Amino acid sequence: MSEARQHQRQISLGAFLMETGHHIAAWRHPDTHATGGLDYAQLAQIAERAKFDAIFFADSVSVRDTHLPSLSRTARADHFEPLTLLSALSVVTSHIGLVATVSTTFNEPYNVARKFASLDHLSGGRSGWNLVTSSTETEAHNFGFDKHPDHALRYERAKEFHDVVTGLWDSWDDDAFLRDKASGIYFDPDKVHVLDYRGKHFKVRGPLNVARSPQGRPVVIQAGASDAGKELAAQTAEVIFVAHQTLDEAKHFYRDVKGRLARYGRRPEHLKIMPGIFPVIGRTQQEAQDKFDALQDLIHPTVGLQLLSNMSGGVDLSKYDVDGPVPELPETNGGKSRQRLLLDLARRDNLTIRQLYLRIAGARGHQQVIGTPQSIADQLQQWFEEEGADGFNIMSPWLPGGLSEFAELVVPELQRRGLFRTEYAGRTLREHLGLPRPENQFSESTQAAQVAQTA
Amino acid sequence: MSEARQHQRQISLGAFLMETGHHIAAWRHPDTHATGGLDYAQLAQIAERAKFDAIFFADSVSVRDTHLPSLSRTARADHFEPLTLLSALSVVTSHIGLVATVSTTFNEPYNVARKFASLDHLSGGRSGWNLVTSSTETEAHNFGFDKHPDHALRYERAKEFHDVVTGLWDSWDDDAFLRDKASGIYFDPDKVHVLDYRGKHFKVRGPLNVARSPQGRPVVIQAGASDAGKELAAQTAEVIFVAHQTLDEAKHFYRDVKGRLARYGRRPEHLKIMPGIFPVIGRTQQEAQDKFDALQDLIHPTVGLQLLSNMSGGVDLSKYDVDGPVPELPETNGGKSRQRLLLDLARRDNLTIRQLYLRIAGARGHQQVIGTPQSIADQLQQWFEEEGADGFNIMSPWLPGGLSEFAELVVPELQRRGLFRTEYAGRTLREHLGLPRPENQFSESTQAAQVAQTA
Repeated sequence: MSEARQHQRQISLGAFLMETGHHIAAWRHPDTHATGGLDYAQLAQIAERAKFDAIFFADSVSVRDTHLPSLSRTARADHFEPLTLLSALSVVTSHIGLVATVSTTFNEPYNVARKFASLDHLSGGRSGWNLVTSSTETEAHNFGFDKHPDHALRYERAKEFHDVVTGLWDSWDDDAFLRDKASGIYFDPDKVHVLDYRGKHFKVRGPLNVARSPQGRPVVIQAGASDAGKELAAQTAEVIFVAHQTLDEAKHFYRDVKGRLARYGRRPEHLKIMPGIFPVIGRTQQEAQDKFDALQDLIHPTVGLQLLSNMSGGVDLSKYDVDGPVPELPETNGGKSRQRLLLDLARRDNLTIRQLYLRIAGARGHQQVIGTPQSIADQLQQWFEEEGADGFNIMSPWLPGGLSEFAELVVPELQRRGLFRTEYAGRTLREHLGLPRPENQFSESTQAAQVAQTA
Repeated sequence: MSEARQHQRQISLGAFLMETGHHIAAWRHPDTHATGGLDYAQLAQIAERAKFDAIFFADSVSVRDTHLPSLSRTARADHFEPLTLLSALSVVTSHIGLVATVSTTFNEPYNVARKFASLDHLSGGRSGWNLVTSSTETEAHNFGFDKHPDHALRYERAKEFHDVVTGLWDSWDDDAFLRDKASGIYFDPDKVHVLDYRGKHFKVRGPLNVARSPQGRPVVIQAGASDAGKELAAQTAEVIFVAHQTLDEAKHFYRDVKGRLARYGRRPEHLKIMPGIFPVIGRTQQEAQDKFDALQDLIHPTVGLQLLSNMSGGVDLSKYDVDGPVPELPETNGGKSRQRLLLDLARRDNLTIRQLYLRIAGARGHQQVIGTPQSIADQLQQWFEEEGADGFNIMSPWLPGGLSEFAELVVPELQRRGLFRTEYAGRTLREHLGLPRPENQFSESTQAAQVAQTA
C-alpha cells in the first residue's frame, strides 16, 4: 500500500446489531437463531475480523405493546440492555468499538458518565455513547410521565445532560493517579476537578468516581435529524447515525451539518456522518432481489401496518385502505423527523400504504441496497467520495448470515479499492474513527495552553 | 460424603471484592497491584475455584472528597461501576454468583430491573442485586439534592422501588416466548403482564422489555441494620449482609430478623444472614498478628481520623484529642446504624479515638478474625452452628493474596468438616444459596394454584 493511500480519507464502518437482524421478519428466516439468546459474541467477532470501527446497539426502554397482535409476531419485545451486553462483549473482542444507546430523558447524568467511563476502562478505550432523547409514549409511561416530554424540552435537557457527562469525564487529569506505595500518595489532590454544574435541568457537583478513561472521553454519537437534533449534533456529536433515501438528501444533510460546526469552533473532520445501509447481497442482482423478496414474503400484514404506525410516531393507519394512498399524517410530539422522512418517501414514489410498509419493513427509512458486492461497493464509494457520508452503519437484514456476507464479500471489495483498512492501526474507537483524544478542559496544562494561544 | 451430610445445612460464602483489599492501607501492601486496573478476572476465578456462592461489589455514587488530604492517601476515590464490571466477569466465570450494589435513591426502577435481568440472562442465572438506599451527602449532591433525603423517606421509596422491580421481573411468563418460525408467533400475547404500578414515589406501567430471566428473579440482597432496614429486609430480602462484632450481637440480630419473617408469610430458611468477616490468616497466631500489624503500620494518621468521620456519617473528630476518649456523636441523617455500631464498640472496649480508628481501619465495623485456618474455621463454625449466621461475606484485607489464602487454607478446612460444598451442585446463584425459584406472581398458573389453595 502506497504512503499516499495510507493517508487518504477512509470509510468508517459500524455494525448495527439487532436481535435476529434488521428486517422485521428476519427471525423467521431459516438461517437465523431465534432463541432470544442469539450469540452476540459471534456477531462481534465477525465484525472485528472484518475490521469494522464499531458494533452499535440501539435501545428503547419499553415494550411497544400498543398493538399486541402485531408485536407478538416480531422479535422486538425483548432484548439485552446494551451496556451490560457490551461490557460482556468487551471481553471477547480486542479492537472493535462498542457503542450503546442511552436516553438522556430517563437517566441521571452521573450514572451514565460512570457506566461509559467504566466500559472505556474495561475495554481499553473502545466505548461510545449514542445520545438519544427517546420518542415514544410507552417509554414515558415507565418513568412516571403521563405523556412524553415535549420535543424542545427533551433537546434542552439533552444538551445539559451532555455537558454534565463530558464535564464529569474530565474530573481527573490523565496523570492524577500516582499510586506511589512509598510515599503513600494515591492521587494528586491538585489534579481532581469539581464540576459543580448548575443548570435548568441538572445540579451535579462531581467529581466522577472513575479515573479519566483511555479515550479521555468516550466517543459521543447522535442520531437526531430534526433541526434541534442537527444543532445539538453540531455542538456535541463526534459521529452522527442518520437515515437517508437518496444521495442528494445525504449530500444536503452532510453540507448542512458540517457547515454548522465552525460556529462552535469545530473542524469538519471531527464529526463523522454515517448513514444506515441495509445491504442485501447476491452473486447476481437477481439473486440479491430473490433473497430480499423471500424476507418480504415472511411479513404478516398486521405486522406491516403496525410498523408504519410505530415509524410515524404513533399514527394509526389501520382505518385507511391499505391499497390506497398514504394520507396526510397529523403532527405528533414524538419523532418529527421520522414522520417527515416517511411522507417524503411516499410522495416521491407515489406509494400505497401497503407499498410504503413493505418499503420500510426492511430498512426503517434507511437506504436499502440490493445488489452484488461490486454494485454495493460502487454505491458506498460514490456516497463517500461525493461527500454524502464519511462511513456507514451496516444494518444487516438477518443475522448472522447478512453480516458474514458483508464481511466476506463487500469489505474485501472496499479494501481492494483502498477505501477501507486491512488492519487496525490503533486500539481505541477514537483512533479507528480518526478522532482526536480530547484534552481535559479543566487541567492546568490545558488552561495554560489556551492562555498562551490567546496572549 | 454420606447422604445425611449432603443434606445438612451448609455455610454460604461471598467474596466481597474491593480494589486492592478491605484494609484501608492495603494498596500500599507490597503484594497488591495498585494499578487501578486490578485484575478482577483473577479474583473472580480464585473465588470460583474455591466454590464461593458469589462475588460481591459494594458501590457509592460519589467521591467522598470532603477531606482531600486523607482521601488522596487511599484507593477509595475511583472504582469500576459494578454492573458493567460484573457483566464482563460473567464471561470469564461459569458458576459463581455476581452481586452488584445499586442504590434505590438515585436510580429509576425500570432501568435497574432491566440491567439485573439482562445480567441474569448473560450469566445463565447468576445475578444478584444488593439493594441500598445510600447514605452520604456527597452522593446526594451528584443527583440534584442539596442534602441527603431523609432516612424514613429513603426506606419508603426503597420498598416501592423493590416492588416495582420485582413486579417488572414478572412481566413475562417463563414460557411466553414461543419463537415459532412456522406460525410466525414470537410470543404468546396472553403471557405478558402489564404491571401498572402507581405508588407514592413511582408510576411505572411496564412490561419489562426483557424476558423472564433464568432465576425467575435475580436474588435480592440487603444490608440495612436499622429497624427500618430490618423490617424492609424481612419483607423483601433473600440475603442480608451485616456487620457484627460479637456472636451475641449476631445471634440477637439473627433471631430478630428471622422472627419478623412469619408476618410476611415467609420461611426462615428463605432469608440468608451473612455477616462480613475480615480474616487475617497465618500458620501461627503470631504470624497472623504480624501480618495484620504490618498493614496497620501503613495507615497514615490523617487517613485514620477521616475514616472514622466517614464511618460515623460525617461527624468531624479532628478537633478532639486523638488519644482521648470518643465523645458522644451528634445524631446525623446518614447511616444511623453505623453510628450506633461505632459508639457501642468504643464504649465496650474503652477505646481512644486513635484506638477506635485503628480498630475499624481494617474491617470497618465488621468482625476481624486474626488466626490460623483452624481457629478461623472454628469461629465460622461456631457462629454458623449457634445461629449467628447462615454464611459469611469474606472481606479480604488485601487482594489477591488475602483471598487466595482463604481459598487455599480456610475453605479446605470447612470442607473437611462437611460445612462447605466441594463442588457446585447447581448453576444459578439461587441454587448455590438454597433459595427457591419464585413463581411468577402474575401468571395464570400461579393464580390458579393460589385459588385452589384457598378453596
